Amino acid sequence: MADHTTTLAVLKDALRHFAAERAWEPFHSPKNLAMGLAVETAELMEHFLLVDCEASRTIARAGQKRGEVADELADVGCHLLNLCNAMEIDLSDAIQAKMAKNAQKYPVEKYRGRFEV
Amino acid sequence: MADHTTTLAVLKDALRHFAAERAWEPFHSPKNLAMGLAVETAELMEHFLLVDCEASRTIARAGQKRGEVADELADVGCHLLNLCNAMEIDLSDAIQAKMAKNAQKYPVEKYRGRFEV
Amino acid sequence: MADHTTTLAVLKDALRHFAAERAWEPFHSPKNLAMGLAVETAELMEHFLLVDCEASRTIARAGQKRGEVADELADVGCHLLNLCNAMEIDLSDAIQAKMAKNAQKYPVEKYRGRFEV
Amino acid sequence: MADHTTTLAVLKDALRHFAAERAWEPFHSPKNLAMGLAVETAELMEHFLLVDCEASRTIARAGQKRGEVADELADVGCHLLNLCNAMEIDLSDAIQAKMAKNAQKYPVEKYRGRFEV
Repeated sequence: MADHTTTLAVLKDALRHFAAERAWEPFHSPKNLAMGLAVETAELMEHFLLVDCEASRTIARAGQKRGEVADELADVGCHLLNLCNAMEIDLSDAIQAKMAKNAQKYPVEKYRGRFEV
Repeated sequence: MADHTTTLAVLKDALRHFAAERAWEPFHSPKNLAMGLAVETAELMEHFLLVDCEASRTIARAGQKRGEVADELADVGCHLLNLCNAMEIDLSDAIQAKMAKNAQKYPVEKYRGRFEV
Repeated sequence: MADHTTTLAVLKDALRHFAAERAWEPFHSPKNLAMGLAVETAELMEHFLLVDCEASRTIARAGQKRGEVADELADVGCHLLNLCNAMEIDLSDAIQAKMAKNAQKYPVEKYRGRFEV
Repeated sequence: MADHTTTLAVLKDALRHFAAERAWEPFHSPKNLAMGLAVETAELMEHFLLVDCEASRTIARAGQKRGEVADELADVGCHLLNLCNAMEIDLSDAIQAKMAKNAQKYPVEKYRGRFEV
């Protein structure tokens, strides 16, 4: 697989199959998947706890650390897609809609080089 | 867009373009994106705070709530893909590798209907 | 120590001393302590990931699990008090002020048995 | 109130009373309180999202921001103490036990000026 040939549906189908083989659907309530997503996100964040913002840019270059971070990103991605499966939400549609909203909220001319939450 | 026709690279490219137009790359250190991802994940989780696991399954059915949850899922997705962009990580590869590991860790015959963290 | 004889200042002083002995103040920026607090909170939450709300009430009764959860609660408490130290914030004052605000926001007669986020 | 005169039991009693007046105990399962704690922690973290570690040290100096951060710290504190109430855990004891463990894990002579997760 690779990001330029893999659709989201392919990953979602693989995860649905993985859960179905193990009869794990009862554990996949949106509440529990959202909690699990938060737990995985914190494990990802932990890798950046002791470095400054600039230093965090080089973490992904190093061998072992790069693998560990990719592993946590995958866990976050799996939980996110499991949630989309459980709630029958099309993530591409949701992201496209959100980006259109953000394009309105942050017009290029006003927000070039500026950001706010 | 839709999940069965959209590749991850298409979404990553759209997000890279969105950030580049606004010259936001300086804000996109992995440390800050990981923090932002955790913030978005908590906002998603908040929708499930007051319901029980079973009740959380029906939240996505209702009109307004469904839209709000899809919006938060999109925010989580955008941050995750921004992180993959910033760290040049192929998410499909990472997810495939993780699923192979999990298939070893949770063999079907032993984990059918059982789960543990 | 015990909660009915221990003031918050006693705990804050103990934590300040612990950090000073190790010259850890440079690691205790509010940004990093807030991230660390989020990481510890996720570790606490993980103990409740696979149980339903009602079942989570009995987790603290069992021996080993009770000790593990108390340990995570302590980690959360230490990070919270380290943050109060780093920012010179009086937590008792802040909690008292917040409870006064919440008493206005959630009047007893209107919110008895009801809750909303 | 102030941290040098307020015991943890005083705050815990005030929170127990606040919940009892509103008959909120059914909402205070450990699972939900842990989720709520994670949500509040993320709201606190959001204040530090766009600043660097060093810059985060000065945020608490400014008027309005200082009040907002104190407010979030109070929310985190309330959820933490509500959890200790729900699980009948003595937080001072737990913190003291954890600090004794950490003193063994991070001996002064070895960890002066060094830190690791």
